[in-house]
Amino acid sequence: MGVRRTSFADMPCAIARTLEVVGEWWSLLIVRDAFLGVTRFDDWQRRLGIARNVLAARLDRLVEEGVFERRRYQDNPPRHEYLLTDKGRDLAPVLQALRSWGDHYAPTPDGPTTVLVHDACGHAARPVPHCSACGERLGRDVHVEAGPGAVDPAFVGAGRPADR
Amino acid sequence: MGVRRTSFADMPCAIARTLEVVGEWWSLLIVRDAFLGVTRFDDWQRRLGIARNVLAARLDRLVEEGVFERRRYQDNPPRHEYLLTDKGRDLAPVLQALRSWGDHYAPTPDGPTTVLVHDACGHAARPVPHCSACGERLGRDVHVEAGPGAVDPAFVGAGRPADR
Repeated sequence: MGVRRTSFADMPCAIARTLEVVGEWWSLLIVRDAFLGVTRFDDWQRRLGIARNVLAARLDRLVEEGVFERRRYQDNPPRHEYLLTDKGRDLAPVLQALRSWGDHYAPTPDGPTTVLVHDACGHAARPVPHCSACGERLGRDVHVEAGPGAVDPAFVGAGRPADR
Repeated sequence: MGVRRTSFADMPCAIARTLEVVGEWWSLLIVRDAFLGVTRFDDWQRRLGIARNVLAARLDRLVEEGVFERRRYQDNPPRHEYLLTDKGRDLAPVLQALRSWGDHYAPTPDGPTTVLVHDACGHAARPVPHCSACGERLGRDVHVEAGPGAVDPAFVGAGRPADR
Protein backbone atom coordinates (compact mmCIF):
# COMPACT_ATOMS: atom_id res chain seq x y z
CA MET A 1 0.00 0.00 0.00
CA GLY A 2 1.68 3.11 -1.16
CA VAL A 3 5.01 1.31 -1.15
CA ARG A 4 6.51 1.24 -4.61
CA ARG A 5 8.09 -2.01 -5.51
CA THR A 6 9.54 -3.64 -8.57
CA SER A 7 6.93 -5.17 -10.86
CA PHE A 8 7.44 -8.79 -11.85
CA ALA A 9 4.91 -8.50 -14.71
CA ASP A 10 7.47 -8.00 -17.44
CA MET A 11 9.88 -10.67 -16.29
CA PRO A 12 10.03 -13.53 -18.79
CA CYS A 13 9.18 -16.13 -16.17
CA ALA A 14 5.87 -17.76 -15.34
CA ILE A 15 6.67 -17.84 -11.63
CA ALA A 16 7.39 -14.12 -11.52
CA ARG A 17 4.27 -13.32 -13.52
CA THR A 18 2.14 -15.40 -11.19
CA LEU A 19 3.61 -13.67 -8.15
CA GLU A 20 2.81 -10.34 -9.79
CA VAL A 21 -0.88 -11.35 -9.65
CA VAL A 22 -1.09 -13.12 -6.30
CA GLY A 23 2.23 -12.50 -4.56
CA GLU A 24 1.36 -9.45 -2.52
CA TRP A 25 1.10 -9.88 1.22
CA TRP A 26 -2.47 -11.06 2.05
CA SER A 27 -3.56 -11.97 -1.48
CA LEU A 28 -3.18 -15.74 -1.16
CA LEU A 29 -4.87 -15.74 2.25
CA ILE A 30 -7.81 -13.91 0.68
CA VAL A 31 -7.96 -16.59 -2.01
CA ARG A 32 -7.59 -19.31 0.65
CA ASP A 33 -10.63 -17.97 2.50
CA ALA A 34 -12.58 -17.84 -0.74
CA PHE A 35 -12.02 -21.59 -1.10
CA LEU A 36 -13.46 -21.93 2.39
CA GLY A 37 -16.63 -20.18 1.30
CA VAL A 38 -15.98 -16.54 2.13
CA THR A 39 -17.50 -14.14 -0.41
CA ARG A 40 -18.05 -10.90 1.51
CA PHE A 41 -15.80 -8.03 2.47
CA ASP A 42 -16.77 -7.96 6.14
CA ASP A 43 -16.18 -11.69 6.55
CA TRP A 44 -12.64 -11.43 5.16
CA GLN A 45 -12.01 -8.37 7.25
CA ARG A 46 -13.08 -10.10 10.45
CA ARG A 47 -11.32 -13.39 9.73
CA LEU A 48 -8.03 -11.89 8.62
CA GLY A 49 -7.91 -8.84 10.86
CA ILE A 50 -6.70 -6.93 7.82
CA ALA A 51 -6.96 -3.16 7.43
CA ARG A 52 -10.02 -2.28 5.36
CA ASN A 53 -8.10 -0.17 2.85
CA VAL A 54 -5.59 -2.96 2.27
CA LEU A 55 -8.35 -5.53 1.84
CA ALA A 56 -10.19 -3.26 -0.61
CA ALA A 57 -7.00 -2.74 -2.64
CA ARG A 58 -6.23 -6.47 -2.75
CA LEU A 59 -9.78 -7.40 -3.80
CA ASP A 60 -9.80 -4.69 -6.48
CA ARG A 61 -6.55 -6.02 -7.87
CA LEU A 62 -7.71 -9.63 -7.82
CA VAL A 63 -10.92 -8.62 -9.63
CA GLU A 64 -8.90 -6.64 -12.18
CA GLU A 65 -6.72 -9.71 -12.76
CA GLY A 66 -9.76 -11.95 -13.19
CA VAL A 67 -9.16 -14.07 -10.10
CA PHE A 68 -12.47 -12.93 -8.60
CA GLU A 69 -15.72 -11.81 -10.16
CA ARG A 70 -17.53 -9.01 -8.30
CA ARG A 71 -21.29 -9.50 -8.15
CA ARG A 72 -23.92 -7.22 -6.65
CA TYR A 73 -26.17 -9.14 -4.29
CA GLN A 74 -28.14 -6.25 -2.81
CA ASP A 75 -29.23 -2.95 -4.32
CA ASN A 76 -30.14 -0.72 -1.43
CA PRO A 77 -27.60 -0.08 -0.09
CA PRO A 78 -25.46 -1.60 -2.84
CA ARG A 79 -23.51 -4.63 -1.63
CA HIS A 80 -21.15 -6.86 -3.56
CA GLU A 81 -19.78 -10.30 -3.15
CA TYR A 82 -16.64 -11.76 -4.65
CA LEU A 83 -16.66 -15.16 -6.34
CA LEU A 84 -13.65 -17.11 -7.53
CA THR A 85 -13.51 -17.44 -11.30
CA ASP A 86 -12.09 -20.52 -13.02
CA LYS A 87 -8.79 -18.66 -13.10
CA GLY A 88 -9.03 -18.18 -9.35
CA ARG A 89 -10.08 -21.77 -8.64
CA ASP A 90 -7.09 -22.95 -10.62
CA LEU A 91 -4.92 -21.50 -7.85
CA ALA A 92 -5.92 -24.50 -5.71
CA PRO A 93 -2.66 -26.38 -6.46
CA VAL A 94 -0.66 -23.35 -5.32
CA LEU A 95 -2.49 -23.28 -2.00
CA GLN A 96 -2.21 -27.04 -1.64
CA ALA A 97 1.54 -26.91 -2.20
CA LEU A 98 1.90 -24.14 0.39
CA ARG A 99 -0.27 -26.12 2.82
CA SER A 100 1.73 -29.32 2.36
CA TRP A 101 5.03 -27.57 3.01
CA GLY A 102 3.64 -25.76 6.04
CA ASP A 103 2.13 -28.92 7.52
CA HIS A 104 5.62 -30.39 7.45
CA TYR A 105 7.90 -27.44 8.23
CA ALA A 106 5.76 -24.92 10.08
CA PRO A 107 3.16 -27.08 11.79
CA THR A 108 0.54 -25.76 14.13
CA PRO A 109 0.98 -27.19 17.65
CA ASP A 110 -2.19 -29.30 17.68
CA GLY A 111 -2.00 -30.60 14.15
CA PRO A 112 -3.36 -29.24 10.90
CA THR A 113 -6.24 -26.82 11.27
CA THR A 114 -7.66 -27.93 7.97
CA VAL A 115 -7.42 -31.07 5.91
CA LEU A 116 -8.02 -31.54 2.24
CA VAL A 117 -10.62 -34.24 1.50
CA HIS A 118 -10.86 -36.00 -1.84
CA ASP A 119 -14.58 -36.29 -2.58
CA ALA A 120 -14.17 -39.30 -4.86
CA CYS A 121 -12.56 -41.53 -2.21
CA GLY A 122 -13.70 -39.70 0.91
CA HIS A 123 -10.26 -39.67 2.51
CA ALA A 124 -8.00 -36.91 3.75
CA ALA A 125 -5.50 -36.38 0.97
CA ARG A 126 -2.22 -34.77 0.24
CA PRO A 127 -1.59 -33.89 -3.40
CA VAL A 128 1.25 -36.04 -4.73
CA PRO A 129 2.76 -34.73 -7.96
CA HIS A 130 2.96 -37.15 -10.88
CA CYS A 131 4.66 -36.63 -14.22
CA SER A 132 2.30 -35.46 -16.98
CA ALA A 133 4.43 -37.33 -19.53
CA CYS A 134 4.98 -40.77 -18.00
CA GLY A 135 2.49 -40.76 -15.13
CA GLU A 136 5.04 -41.81 -12.53
CA ARG A 137 5.50 -39.98 -9.27
CA LEU A 138 7.70 -36.87 -9.53
CA GLY A 139 10.38 -36.69 -6.87
CA ARG A 140 13.60 -34.76 -6.84
CA ASP A 141 14.59 -36.35 -10.16
CA VAL A 142 13.65 -33.25 -12.11
CA HIS A 143 15.60 -30.33 -13.51
CA VAL A 144 14.79 -27.12 -15.33
CA GLU A 145 15.86 -26.40 -18.92
CA ALA A 146 15.51 -23.38 -21.17
CA GLY A 147 12.13 -23.33 -22.90
CA PRO A 148 11.09 -21.95 -26.29
CA GLY A 149 10.53 -18.47 -24.86
CA ALA A 150 13.92 -18.16 -23.20
CA VAL A 151 15.42 -14.82 -24.11
CA ASP A 152 18.86 -16.01 -23.20
CA PRO A 153 19.25 -19.72 -22.50
CA ALA A 154 22.11 -18.85 -20.19
CA PHE A 155 19.53 -17.12 -18.02
CA VAL A 156 18.32 -20.53 -17.02
CA GLY A 157 21.24 -20.61 -14.77
CA ALA A 158 24.61 -21.67 -13.74
CA GLY A 159 23.79 -25.22 -14.64
CA ARG A 160 22.46 -27.79 -12.28
CA PRO A 161 22.66 -27.00 -8.60
CA ALA A 162 26.02 -28.13 -7.31
CA ASP A 163 24.52 -29.95 -4.36
CA ARG A 164 22.01 -32.15 -6.17
CA MET B 1 12.11 -3.19 4.23
CA GLY B 2 11.26 -1.04 7.14
CA VAL B 3 7.59 -1.46 6.42
CA ARG B 4 5.84 -3.08 9.36
CA ARG B 5 3.28 -5.61 8.41
CA THR B 6 1.14 -8.18 10.13
CA SER B 7 2.92 -11.42 10.90
CA PHE B 8 1.27 -14.61 9.72
CA ALA B 9 3.50 -16.73 11.99
CA ASP B 10 0.95 -17.13 14.75
CA MET B 11 -2.01 -17.83 12.53
CA PRO B 12 -3.21 -21.40 12.99
CA CYS B 13 -2.94 -22.18 9.29
CA ALA B 14 -0.19 -23.96 7.39
CA ILE B 15 -0.63 -21.70 4.37
CA ALA B 16 -0.21 -18.55 6.44
CA ARG B 17 2.81 -19.98 8.24
CA THR B 18 4.43 -20.90 4.96
CA LEU B 19 3.83 -17.42 3.58
CA GLU B 20 5.42 -16.00 6.72
CA VAL B 21 8.64 -17.80 5.69
CA VAL B 22 8.64 -17.34 1.91
CA GLY B 23 5.82 -14.91 1.16
CA GLU B 24 7.75 -11.68 1.10
CA TRP B 25 8.22 -9.97 -2.22
CA TRP B 26 11.34 -11.47 -3.89
CA SER B 27 11.78 -14.48 -1.61
CA LEU B 28 10.33 -17.09 -3.95
CA LEU B 29 12.27 -15.68 -6.91
CA ILE B 30 15.45 -16.02 -4.87
CA VAL B 31 14.54 -19.64 -4.18
CA ARG B 32 13.64 -20.14 -7.86
CA ASP B 33 17.10 -18.96 -8.91
CA ALA B 34 18.70 -21.26 -6.35
CA PHE B 35 17.01 -24.19 -8.11
CA LEU B 36 18.60 -22.90 -11.32
CA GLY B 37 22.02 -23.11 -9.72
CA VAL B 38 22.57 -19.64 -8.28
CA THR B 39 24.47 -19.66 -5.00
CA ARG B 40 26.14 -16.25 -4.78
CA PHE B 41 24.94 -12.83 -3.75
CA ASP B 42 26.23 -10.99 -6.82
CA ASP B 43 24.60 -13.46 -9.20
CA TRP B 44 21.20 -13.01 -7.59
CA GLN B 45 21.70 -9.29 -7.52
CA ARG B 46 22.49 -9.14 -11.23
CA ARG B 47 19.80 -11.56 -12.32
CA LEU B 48 16.99 -10.06 -10.28
CA GLY B 49 17.98 -6.41 -10.39
CA ILE B 50 17.11 -6.29 -6.71
CA ALA B 51 18.45 -3.66 -4.29
CA ARG B 52 21.41 -5.04 -2.37
CA ASN B 53 19.98 -4.26 1.05
CA VAL B 54 16.72 -6.00 0.19
CA LEU B 55 18.53 -9.05 -1.16
CA ALA B 56 20.70 -9.21 1.96
CA ALA B 57 17.66 -9.01 4.21
CA ARG B 58 15.81 -11.73 2.28
CA LEU B 59 18.79 -14.07 2.28
CA ASP B 60 19.36 -13.50 6.01
CA ARG B 61 15.76 -14.34 6.71
CA LEU B 62 15.81 -17.45 4.54
CA VAL B 63 18.99 -18.63 6.29
CA GLU B 64 17.41 -17.94 9.67
CA GLU B 65 14.38 -19.99 8.64
CA GLY B 66 16.56 -22.86 7.46
CA VAL B 67 15.67 -22.58 3.77
CA PHE B 68 19.29 -21.84 2.88
CA GLU B 69 22.56 -22.81 4.48
CA ARG B 70 25.28 -20.12 4.36
CA ARG B 71 28.73 -21.54 3.62
CA ARG B 72 32.06 -19.73 3.43
CA TYR B 73 33.83 -20.54 0.19
CA GLN B 74 36.71 -18.07 0.42
CA ASP B 75 38.57 -16.67 3.40
CA ASN B 76 40.39 -13.58 2.19
CA PRO B 77 38.29 -11.60 1.69
CA PRO B 78 35.54 -13.69 3.30
CA ARG B 79 32.90 -14.77 0.79
CA HIS B 80 29.82 -16.88 1.35
CA GLU B 81 27.53 -18.92 -0.80
CA TYR B 82 23.98 -19.96 -0.10
CA LEU B 83 22.83 -23.52 -0.61
CA LEU B 84 19.28 -24.81 -0.47
CA THR B 85 18.69 -27.14 2.46
CA ASP B 86 16.27 -30.07 2.26
CA LYS B 87 13.68 -27.70 3.70
CA GLY B 88 14.40 -25.31 0.85
CA ARG B 89 14.41 -27.98 -1.84
CA ASP B 90 11.03 -29.13 -0.59
CA LEU B 91 9.65 -25.82 -1.87
CA ALA B 92 9.92 -27.23 -5.40
CA PRO B 93 6.20 -28.15 -5.54
CA VAL B 94 5.28 -24.58 -4.58
CA LEU B 95 7.37 -23.20 -7.45
CA GLN B 96 6.03 -25.83 -9.82
CA ALA B 97 2.44 -24.93 -8.94
CA LEU B 98 3.17 -21.23 -9.48
CA ARG B 99 4.86 -22.03 -12.79
CA SER B 100 1.97 -24.17 -14.03
CA TRP B 101 -0.58 -21.48 -13.26
CA GLY B 102 1.56 -18.79 -14.88
CA ASP B 103 2.19 -20.85 -18.01
CA HIS B 104 -1.57 -20.98 -18.46
CA TYR B 105 -2.79 -17.61 -17.22
CA ALA B 106 0.17 -15.25 -17.53
CA PRO B 107 2.16 -16.74 -20.41
CA THR B 108 5.25 -15.16 -21.81
CA PRO B 109 4.76 -14.14 -25.46
CA ASP B 110 7.14 -16.68 -26.97
CA GLY B 111 6.26 -19.62 -24.80
CA PRO B 112 7.64 -20.81 -21.49
CA THR B 113 11.13 -19.58 -20.71
CA THR B 114 11.83 -22.72 -18.74
CA VAL B 115 10.49 -26.23 -18.79
CA LEU B 116 10.59 -28.83 -16.09
CA VAL B 117 12.19 -32.09 -17.25
CA HIS B 118 11.57 -35.41 -15.52
CA ASP B 119 14.94 -37.15 -15.42
CA ALA B 120 13.45 -40.64 -15.21
CA CYS B 121 11.51 -40.39 -18.49
CA GLY B 122 13.42 -37.54 -20.12
CA HIS B 123 10.31 -35.60 -21.09
CA ALA B 124 9.10 -32.10 -20.35
CA ALA B 125 6.62 -32.52 -17.53
CA ARG B 126 3.91 -30.71 -15.69
CA PRO B 127 3.24 -31.91 -12.18
CA VAL B 128 -0.22 -33.48 -12.03
CA PRO B 129 -1.57 -33.84 -8.49
CA HIS B 130 -2.77 -37.29 -7.45
CA CYS B 131 -4.54 -38.27 -4.24
CA SER B 132 -2.21 -39.62 -1.55
CA ALA B 133 -5.02 -41.87 -0.29
CA CYS B 134 -6.44 -43.50 -3.43
CA GLY B 135 -3.79 -42.61 -6.02
CA GLU B 136 -6.28 -41.20 -8.51
CA ARG B 137 -5.87 -37.80 -10.12
CA LEU B 138 -7.06 -34.90 -7.96
CA GLY B 139 -9.30 -32.50 -9.79
CA ARG B 140 -11.77 -30.02 -8.40
CA ASP B 141 -13.50 -32.82 -6.49
CA VAL B 142 -11.88 -31.83 -3.22
CA HIS B 143 -12.99 -29.77 -0.25
CA VAL B 144 -11.44 -28.55 2.97
CA GLU B 145 -12.58 -29.69 6.41
CA ALA B 146 -11.57 -28.73 9.93
CA GLY B 147 -8.50 -30.65 11.04
CA PRO B 148 -7.42 -31.81 14.52
CA GLY B 149 -5.73 -28.47 15.23
CA ALA B 150 -8.70 -26.31 14.39
CA VAL B 151 -9.21 -23.80 17.18
CA ASP B 152 -12.76 -23.21 16.09
CA PRO B 153 -14.15 -25.56 13.46
CA ALA B 154 -16.42 -22.74 12.34
CA PHE B 155 -13.25 -20.95 11.26
CA VAL B 156 -13.03 -23.36 8.39
CA GLY B 157 -15.63 -21.30 6.78
CA ALA B 158 -19.06 -20.55 5.68
CA GLY B 159 -19.40 -24.09 4.39
CA ARG B 160 -18.66 -25.17 0.89
CA PRO B 161 -18.28 -22.44 -1.70
CA ALA B 162 -21.66 -21.61 -3.14
CA ASP B 163 -20.41 -21.77 -6.71
CA ARG B 164 -18.76 -25.17 -6.69
